[in-house]
Amino acid sequence: MSNHEFYMDLALKNAQAMKGQTDPNPLVGSVIVNDNRIVGVGAHMKAGEAHAEINALRMAGDKAKGGTIYVTLEPCSHHGRTGPCAIAIVEAGIKKVVIATLDPNPIVAGNGVKILEDAGIEVITGIKEEESIQMNEVFNKYIIKQKPFITLKSGITLDGKVASHSFNSKWITSEQARLDVHQLRSENKAILVGINTVLKDDPALTARIPNGRNPIRIVMDSKLRIPLNSQLITDNQAETWIFTSQNHDQDKRSKLEALGISIFATTGIDSVNPTDVATQLGEKGVSSVLIEGGGNINAAFLENKLIDKVVLYVAPKLIGGSEAPSFLEGTGIDKMKDAVELTNITISPIGPDFKFTGYPIYKDGI
Amino acid sequence: MSNHEFYMDLALKNAQAMKGQTDPNPLVGSVIVNDNRIVGVGAHMKAGEAHAEINALRMAGDKAKGGTIYVTLEPCSHHGRTGPCAIAIVEAGIKKVVIATLDPNPIVAGNGVKILEDAGIEVITGIKEEESIQMNEVFNKYIIKQKPFITLKSGITLDGKVASHSFNSKWITSEQARLDVHQLRSENKAILVGINTVLKDDPALTARIPNGRNPIRIVMDSKLRIPLNSQLITDNQAETWIFTSQNHDQDKRSKLEALGISIFATTGIDSVNPTDVATQLGEKGVSSVLIEGGGNINAAFLENKLIDKVVLYVAPKLIGGSEAPSFLEGTGIDKMKDAVELTNITISPIGPDFKFTGYPIYKDGI
Repeated sequence: MSNHEFYMDLALKNAQAMKGQTDPNPLVGSVIVNDNRIVGVGAHMKAGEAHAEINALRMAGDKAKGGTIYVTLEPCSHHGRTGPCAIAIVEAGIKKVVIATLDPNPIVAGNGVKILEDAGIEVITGIKEEESIQMNEVFNKYIIKQKPFITLKSGITLDGKVASHSFNSKWITSEQARLDVHQLRSENKAILVGINTVLKDDPALTARIPNGRNPIRIVMDSKLRIPLNSQLITDNQAETWIFTSQNHDQDKRSKLEALGISIFATTGIDSVNPTDVATQLGEKGVSSVLIEGGGNINAAFLENKLIDKVVLYVAPKLIGGSEAPSFLEGTGIDKMKDAVELTNITISPIGPDFKFTGYPIYKDGI
Repeated sequence: MSNHEFYMDLALKNAQAMKGQTDPNPLVGSVIVNDNRIVGVGAHMKAGEAHAEINALRMAGDKAKGGTIYVTLEPCSHHGRTGPCAIAIVEAGIKKVVIATLDPNPIVAGNGVKILEDAGIEVITGIKEEESIQMNEVFNKYIIKQKPFITLKSGITLDGKVASHSFNSKWITSEQARLDVHQLRSENKAILVGINTVLKDDPALTARIPNGRNPIRIVMDSKLRIPLNSQLITDNQAETWIFTSQNHDQDKRSKLEALGISIFATTGIDSVNPTDVATQLGEKGVSSVLIEGGGNINAAFLENKLIDKVVLYVAPKLIGGSEAPSFLEGTGIDKMKDAVELTNITISPIGPDFKFTGYPIYKDGI
């Protein structure tokens, strides 16, 4: 690890420590080094409060002069709540700026760097860039596309099954893996399932961990078949939103709305259009969605190229069965060359299971 | 790593280097240490030649006296081709013997240790035991049960599919993974497929790597539907054996036998009984079998508890499709608690794919 990577790593760690508390702002961390000594560290801690660079500059005080600042995201050039950080860096007498990644918004990317370079400051970018981008993957998607960052999560056997041929599924994965799912839920603004999951399991879809924040619970239910006594309707643990088809039952809709449930129709005449669901969620300010659907819901989102990230909890178990449901059903793709490949893969043990994460790369075939 | 583990590791490395050349004997390595200095190393190199301990003792000569010998397998107590190693160790004046694992044959396990201890030598066992057992997993199974060590191999997508809904399967895994399969084939005495694989792919099932040794090619074919112009019948690259049902076509059998193909009936009236196949293979001296079947053949062997090891090449791709074939079909197990769990799991990257190995633990439910 070079010095640049060492200091940027510390900046990333400070940024990551604020996970969940900077919303709707991104995670940003900063470190100031002068004469081979760290003279300031900082992070952005809360929307409306100081940016990471400002916190680090304040800590460094006079010692920032002539130093190098490391920042995980390009310093801002706009006059926001705390003034442009790029100008604060110039005024502090910093001689070198090391940046992990440019602003994710292509319209303003590079503007901060330009202010710095125009002031004669040396700027280096791209140090631990991938880590910085991944840390703010939700923010990066939502700020640019106004569409939610969608994570597909499933707990599967090694042969890709989510239940046995007789639909027994308790439990595929370990307690440790299931606890991690509650953490995932807490990190997402919304959780989405299909009506079949509600009818079969009557789930609560809450984040059952200490300080867990319950996501909005979203059900795709083309015929409004959800029972009025479902946990999602009665438990008041979090909002429940139902996306339905054009041809939904108006009477059932009224009953659900009377119980405080929000109902949204999509463009699908008799089905729920997943692309429209994603678009509407973006418009309603939902920046992240965790999909915990069955194989058909999962496939519908994947086939519409809506999945940004895949998280699989893989139990090292075999169950077999040509009729046992898989985590991806639907029609599927035709030619292997058109398969959805996953990139930036990580595999980590979690209890006796393995957590597998990856990012789909879509091709023309799907 | 303790000193014991360090020296045993070297003994294991020497043993493993002889992979493929000691058959039908196991891999064994040995190291002799005296006064904190290695004075001898050895391995068993070929059936009929010296055992590992003898080679190490010869290298050490006088320096063995008062030393410690590390050996990956309990020194033998029987008068075989090279005399009992336990007695040679006593006669060389060794003071301490460190053993990875006892003889796998429970009838003689401990006999070598007894000779040593009766002579006043200190014996330590169990150092790197798991590595030693795994290194000789085929030998251990075959020597004790006279049944082949059966490895199930499959190349799958992350959603457990072996082909798309339209049966397109070229290619799921990378060239690197497919090369590794040829290595696996070369290490196994036989390779087994179902008739559907032959009808669909007309495979050669040979080990296409430098110095690859072609396994015996075994087809489970209850009705003797194999075409007479199949590569397996005509290419003369290796023996082809066909296991069939009681009710097979005698005329087709004669034609196949005239072409040099061995035909064996199993106890199944109209189907091929996998347990009987395994038993017959053991009786014919086949110590290891690689199964490259489709989902039904794989499931039949798994459901009959015949699989000793699972090797999966997992491509980080998603294909979906409720009709896309999975690597485990059949009926499958009913309750998740009865799933076949895999133990001693390893996951290693191989090109863009992952090689996953594990050992099934069978329960009553299957």
